[in-house]
Amino acid sequence: MELTGLSFIGSQRGSRDGASFQAFAPQTGEPLQPVFRAATPQQLERAATLATEAFASYSQTSGKTRAAFLRRIADGFEFHREELAQRAHLETALPVPRLTGEVTRTANQLRMFAGVVEEGSWVQARIDPALPDRQPIPRPDIRSMLRALGPAAVFGASNFPLAFSVAGGDTASALAAGCPVIVKAHPAHPGTSELAAAIISESVKALDLHPGVFSMLFDSGVAIGTALVKHPRIKAVAFTGSLRAGRALMDLAAARPDPIPCFTEMSSGNPVFVLPGALRKGPAALAQSLFGSFTLGAGQFCTKPGIVFVPEAPESTAFFDELKSLVEHAQPFTLLTEGIAREYDRAAQARAGQIPLAAHSQNDSKTQERGAPFHAQAKLFTVCLDQLIGQPELADEIFGPDTLLVRCDATHDYLRAAHALSGHLTATILGDEADLAANRELIHILEQKAGRLIFNGFPTGVEVTHAMVHGGPYPSTSDPRFTSVGGLAIYRFARPVCFQNFPQAMLPAELQDDNPLGISRLRDGKPEQR
Amino acid sequence: MELTGLSFIGSQRGSRDGASFQAFAPQTGEPLQPVFRAATPQQLERAATLATEAFASYSQTSGKTRAAFLRRIADGFEFHREELAQRAHLETALPVPRLTGEVTRTANQLRMFAGVVEEGSWVQARIDPALPDRQPIPRPDIRSMLRALGPAAVFGASNFPLAFSVAGGDTASALAAGCPVIVKAHPAHPGTSELAAAIISESVKALDLHPGVFSMLFDSGVAIGTALVKHPRIKAVAFTGSLRAGRALMDLAAARPDPIPCFTEMSSGNPVFVLPGALRKGPAALAQSLFGSFTLGAGQFCTKPGIVFVPEAPESTAFFDELKSLVEHAQPFTLLTEGIAREYDRAAQARAGQIPLAAHSQNDSKTQERGAPFHAQAKLFTVCLDQLIGQPELADEIFGPDTLLVRCDATHDYLRAAHALSGHLTATILGDEADLAANRELIHILEQKAGRLIFNGFPTGVEVTHAMVHGGPYPSTSDPRFTSVGGLAIYRFARPVCFQNFPQAMLPAELQDDNPLGISRLRDGKPEQR
Repeated sequence: MELTGLSFIGSQRGSRDGASFQAFAPQTGEPLQPVFRAATPQQLERAATLATEAFASYSQTSGKTRAAFLRRIADGFEFHREELAQRAHLETALPVPRLTGEVTRTANQLRMFAGVVEEGSWVQARIDPALPDRQPIPRPDIRSMLRALGPAAVFGASNFPLAFSVAGGDTASALAAGCPVIVKAHPAHPGTSELAAAIISESVKALDLHPGVFSMLFDSGVAIGTALVKHPRIKAVAFTGSLRAGRALMDLAAARPDPIPCFTEMSSGNPVFVLPGALRKGPAALAQSLFGSFTLGAGQFCTKPGIVFVPEAPESTAFFDELKSLVEHAQPFTLLTEGIAREYDRAAQARAGQIPLAAHSQNDSKTQERGAPFHAQAKLFTVCLDQLIGQPELADEIFGPDTLLVRCDATHDYLRAAHALSGHLTATILGDEADLAANRELIHILEQKAGRLIFNGFPTGVEVTHAMVHGGPYPSTSDPRFTSVGGLAIYRFARPVCFQNFPQAMLPAELQDDNPLGISRLRDGKPEQR
Repeated sequence: MELTGLSFIGSQRGSRDGASFQAFAPQTGEPLQPVFRAATPQQLERAATLATEAFASYSQTSGKTRAAFLRRIADGFEFHREELAQRAHLETALPVPRLTGEVTRTANQLRMFAGVVEEGSWVQARIDPALPDRQPIPRPDIRSMLRALGPAAVFGASNFPLAFSVAGGDTASALAAGCPVIVKAHPAHPGTSELAAAIISESVKALDLHPGVFSMLFDSGVAIGTALVKHPRIKAVAFTGSLRAGRALMDLAAARPDPIPCFTEMSSGNPVFVLPGALRKGPAALAQSLFGSFTLGAGQFCTKPGIVFVPEAPESTAFFDELKSLVEHAQPFTLLTEGIAREYDRAAQARAGQIPLAAHSQNDSKTQERGAPFHAQAKLFTVCLDQLIGQPELADEIFGPDTLLVRCDATHDYLRAAHALSGHLTATILGDEADLAANRELIHILEQKAGRLIFNGFPTGVEVTHAMVHGGPYPSTSDPRFTSVGGLAIYRFARPVCFQNFPQAMLPAELQDDNPLGISRLRDGKPEQR
């Protein structure tokens, strides 16, 4: 596919009127071809109008049609696997194998939601039949099911140029629910975004859907994204990125004359609690696994373990020494953008002014030689629990290859530590089963602090399955009742609609007596016999 | 039960430090005994601390325990039926039979949620078993279910002193989900609130629950309510009332350092579309039913039909004349508070300055004689569709016994009318089945505008059933994905939590392999065989 640098406005392409910008190769800092053009306010207006027009028909399509659409996009992704991975590699410096894996993940996400909407029970159909003889007055027939919210705005994320971007989980779940999508492409990987958008656009045509079902807007600044969230035709927002940007979108959505649902996945320290059994099993191996997790993708994962609680134990020193050594000998990392690299340096320097920098990569000179502004060194900070509780901002996420070891006297300090936590995407407990059984209260506290609790694993690596939760209390997300990964992600984009006293023929198929779609339903609150 | 006028702070009662206030009898305008005392900031602080303490144990109670608790409250309500209805009648002037019915409704709500949590499937348990042989890496075991959000703030509503107040649907669904509740009592019916709180408080003791599970704070102003929504220990808010107050709470919740879910049910015009078949069937009877609906409870229902679209038809004049006559001969109504009566007069006068006041109650002199400031007269406004579309604020809800007839040339105007609507709790279509079948597009538009679509019925009268939706797009509520009535209301107070790689013994019962609770679950996205 050839890149044009132009936005997608339904089946049309944007003009060359907007401001130009380019992506940069993080490895070299050099600009990449082609030149991209920011969408204009007129183009946004047109995309929004088209999305509203498309909603009328698209929201009423069958689950089968939407499933075929999502699978077509998935097939397109796999067909263009190498092209997507190569361009994404150029724009992000993430390794090609990781990116070809991300193509698979993206396709799997699309297919998971295809399965969900094809099967159809996700609409939570409920039927409470009329009770004509009820006293003092008859009860009417009442039936409800979920319907799509309306046109959704989706923001591409920098750190997953495929799986959390143009055709990522937000787009997949919004399209599955029946919402047209307008994507604001992330300016750090516009070429990858254009390739993904072309695949979706081709799929819209192939399924003969209204062209307004999908648009994608380029912009290197915040003007188009801001206008999108404020636009009266937009009815839902989904975003993955920084706390600063995510909170700004939340505030915009909440300040609208008509506030709309806005799911932002933002900032998480992903605390890890090391219990004695984990240290006994092998302090060096533990340090190696932890190092692998917090430097995976150059530490640019939403689920990077950024806070690690470690007790005083015979093996603690060996664990700490191994971790220090791994950090000191780490090769420099290449971050996604110059802005991320600058912010990593700034935040790490600020932290180093407050607490001990226990180790940092000694390969700094190489970084300097290469002279590229996207490079970063691994860092290991340490702090004692009391200081952390007194200065909770020391646990704020730093986006990049660092982590913070919190030294605790013993594991009975962990309850205090857990109570002091803010909201996170994940919380991890490492230990043996006896450790876990001795820490039920810790688990109960962590349930309140995170969307996913992990035993003896690392939080990086978010499975795309029906039960996955990639969400959590603020500031990890805007609303802990939702998730951006897993089968439940579709519920961000749907609302219940109730039909009272409607004749059978006028009810959606999901609510008709004979259950033509064969879905699971509740009748008077109980699972219906099929 | 004897009224003390003091707040409930867990198992304790508030002090007499706060400002005093009294309820007023709307019939006479006279103050009622006893004197009530506003809660102090210290009392709020104590209630919030207790609620957080209670959350640790209450959120982990079984569905059976919570069901027994809710049923105990329901039994208490029915035991004190007469006392509750008599006091509520004094404080609201709503008829005693309506209020004894509201006791039943409140008890039914509590019992419905008891059934939901006792059965247990509402937690949406999902199990994706480990795949140890998956390539390139094994898949861990992943399981998720809903858990309670945390302490919830509930605001009592003026218009349903029992069913949407201290022990109403918000409290019932929050307690069912496992959230401790702090109620801000509505100052217009503090005595009714104290009676309801005493029943809940007794039930907390009887079930031996942590006393912090329930508190109730009095205040005649906004200070305590504001502080409650801003309090860091509060994790969810539920409110029913005016758009002005509801939006203020939304804005407070969204502006917190950590924004929290805030469901406000606010303002709805509940549009009614009259199709020719309904007029043909009997214009006078139609007018009588409509009059009954918009004046029910003195027009103080969230679901009052406040906008009625009527086509030019042979029977239109008869319909209009009958409606006019009913309004002109209506007895004066007694509103809930002086503030509501004042606002009704203000809004109706403002509207009469813009569009024709087609009819108003001729029994005005009586109202004047009685001299009470709580009285109001029925009013009927008319406007043509084009004027309404040009001035959509003419459709804004007026809380009280009025409605607005919108004259349309023909039913093909209805699509334009429907597109121009904002969000509503309900939308109603009156006609025969042929009318309905000829208006599928109208139904599709109305689905986007309201949470409940009614065919040949009136929106007043919200059934408490599993499928009911009492919600809708802004400004009818703060978030169209939720409802404050019906089985789905519990989902406002819960969030998914995922357990990865947890040993069986450490999983909640809902997620254990042998399904000890016998609930419906998804395994790999499909209903599990039981």
